[in-house]
Amino acid sequence: MTKEEVLQSLAIQTESKLVMVVIDGIGGLPVRGKTELEAAKTPNLDRFTPKSVCGLIDPISYGITPGSGPSHLALFGYDPFQYEIGRGVMEALGIDIPLMKDDLTARGNFATIDAEGIIVDRRAGRIPTEKNREICQFLGNEIKEVEGVRIAIYPGKEHRFVVVFKGEGLREDLTDADPQKDGYKAKGTVGLSGEAQRTAQIVNLYLKKAAEILKSFHPANTILLRGFSKIPDIPTLSERFKLRPAAIATYPMYRGLARLVGMEILKTGETIEQEVETLKKYFDQFDFFYIHFKKPDMAGEDGNFKMKIKAIEEIDRILPAIFKLNPDVLVVTGDHSTPTHLKSHSWHPNPILLHSKYVRPDGIRRFTERLCQKGQLGRFPAMDIIPLMLANGLKLKKFGA
Amino acid sequence: MTKEEVLQSLAIQTESKLVMVVIDGIGGLPVRGKTELEAAKTPNLDRFTPKSVCGLIDPISYGITPGSGPSHLALFGYDPFQYEIGRGVMEALGIDIPLMKDDLTARGNFATIDAEGIIVDRRAGRIPTEKNREICQFLGNEIKEVEGVRIAIYPGKEHRFVVVFKGEGLREDLTDADPQKDGYKAKGTVGLSGEAQRTAQIVNLYLKKAAEILKSFHPANTILLRGFSKIPDIPTLSERFKLRPAAIATYPMYRGLARLVGMEILKTGETIEQEVETLKKYFDQFDFFYIHFKKPDMAGEDGNFKMKIKAIEEIDRILPAIFKLNPDVLVVTGDHSTPTHLKSHSWHPNPILLHSKYVRPDGIRRFTERLCQKGQLGRFPAMDIIPLMLANGLKLKKFGA
Repeated sequence: MTKEEVLQSLAIQTESKLVMVVIDGIGGLPVRGKTELEAAKTPNLDRFTPKSVCGLIDPISYGITPGSGPSHLALFGYDPFQYEIGRGVMEALGIDIPLMKDDLTARGNFATIDAEGIIVDRRAGRIPTEKNREICQFLGNEIKEVEGVRIAIYPGKEHRFVVVFKGEGLREDLTDADPQKDGYKAKGTVGLSGEAQRTAQIVNLYLKKAAEILKSFHPANTILLRGFSKIPDIPTLSERFKLRPAAIATYPMYRGLARLVGMEILKTGETIEQEVETLKKYFDQFDFFYIHFKKPDMAGEDGNFKMKIKAIEEIDRILPAIFKLNPDVLVVTGDHSTPTHLKSHSWHPNPILLHSKYVRPDGIRRFTERLCQKGQLGRFPAMDIIPLMLANGLKLKKFGA
Repeated sequence: MTKEEVLQSLAIQTESKLVMVVIDGIGGLPVRGKTELEAAKTPNLDRFTPKSVCGLIDPISYGITPGSGPSHLALFGYDPFQYEIGRGVMEALGIDIPLMKDDLTARGNFATIDAEGIIVDRRAGRIPTEKNREICQFLGNEIKEVEGVRIAIYPGKEHRFVVVFKGEGLREDLTDADPQKDGYKAKGTVGLSGEAQRTAQIVNLYLKKAAEILKSFHPANTILLRGFSKIPDIPTLSERFKLRPAAIATYPMYRGLARLVGMEILKTGETIEQEVETLKKYFDQFDFFYIHFKKPDMAGEDGNFKMKIKAIEEIDRILPAIFKLNPDVLVVTGDHSTPTHLKSHSWHPNPILLHSKYVRPDGIRRFTERLCQKGQLGRFPAMDIIPLMLANGLKLKKFGA
């Protein structure tokens, strides 16, 4: 049996409650000797950490910087090399489009072509989002289906949108219908297998019709599609671990990722206080909660060291409300590092703490990258967090006799 | 996708410079309480280590003692279980024979047989190397080809040599033509597949011809061949990671291993000072440098604790010249341990330090087995060093969206 199969065979349902707090982009790099976590004042974490067991997690593997898709799959216990989430699907999740199993999704750009069909601006001068909405609505009404395949178009920001093709037997093995550079003719997509030919034909017919309709919409007088993908065929957390899981997140992409693995998405507000209120409200109804705090990542991407510290301190202030719920197993960690120094996601490991009745507290004084590294959990892949949480919740039987 | 495929898809070429310093056999075992590294005076490493991130690497896997082949493949980022380097090939690399893709290589011994063809001395009384050279030259002139397959013979030390068969469709699935013990008749090789029958025939014809020619060369009156192998079909570092890699090593075997993965071999001298001069000279022309220091391993194999300390101290004195080049990423580590206590390679992990702008320095005071173990890199397989170096050189894109 594979490890995955063994874990599935051992999982049992119990009443114990597991809570995974994911602080987006929590890990950092030192600026004047201190990382964001080291510089932040986190009295509540400081009290809780020494009673927990600590470690460092690698989101994927040494040196690999993950996007939110792979890093969350790993946090949810899935092998990120095995399950891939296409670009079109990620974009759709990011604007809260509910995708079904057979839907084919693509990211789109409005673009400008000249009289010869040469792309002169791949982003159509970054048209305003408001304009984008109008064109999408118009296009959506004009083209509702092609050869029996229903088509929906959803506006994103500026020139970006998502197209969803709904029909049977659609394939995702298609080349991008987007040269990704100005100065080229927009070509259609090409099917990469015999089975994909029909899908390519439908997409290309759609592209042609859309370009005809948009002729008078200069600068947004054509569309480019790329990242054709379907949601991966992925077993749910309930199938794998007999969990009744729920997700709390203020951003659509994280709700979408949670939905992919079968979590119930709980309606919540815009603030971390509202997220914790949601956790309290539904605490009796599920046995696994994923709660996502976004701000530290945003501050990291902005390269704003002080703002990241502030975001961490805000989260620290809200944590006692979660501690008070007294879940059987509580994990606090991150999906990846976002050092302000790099202004981007990075490959660096994140601190993790796990609290339950069944740990050997290692007395780590603070929840920081360099102190947690000395903890009992050692350095390990994020994929192993869920098994560890299940074990601490006594949700895993013995393996073998 | 596999991890290997993912890494390949993420690699980009940049201007950043990576330097991997490999100190052969660096790790040791305590003698009167201190390992060689602990007993050595290494002021330069001591200054550099606290500014780096440290850890322990397992050359292959817990408990496995590697030869130089597998341990270097792992250091170069290749799975040593997936890519095997045959004995014949290793021997050829050790005497600087440039091997081509289709060449079939074997290690050979001159041996003594009696009138009945029974081997009475597998090593022909360890004939002097000078004698070996003469016989090889004579044999090489007498037999230049067999059935259209060109054959070259290269002398090694004492009774040892290497034979290279050059022709199309040669196979390596052949049994050793060497009973490995005295008192047996020298038998030819046997092809282990249908396709290998022709190769076996050619090798056996060669063995017969060679024995006839050597009749009067007592005690070297026959040859034995073993370790038939071809160079593995291995993607280069440039194909995998878009690197422009170069190697600096005073010993042929390490140059040969580097050549196998597509490194440019830089002409250098016999001393570590000359090696570092070579690094300086070519520093602008490549973006990855492997520089190999041999002496600590030799002292280890000799069981000479003091000499190993001396070798380490010599290397420490040369290191500032490398630090001064200020590579974007610098790694100092070893290919395996060679404890003087064991007089051989061993399975013990080696210390590693990595220095770049993007580390969380862990303040480890000295570059020793026991102190580096407390570092942020944790304990990890040598195979993951290259991905980590690439990441620190900003040579890997983000995985997924």
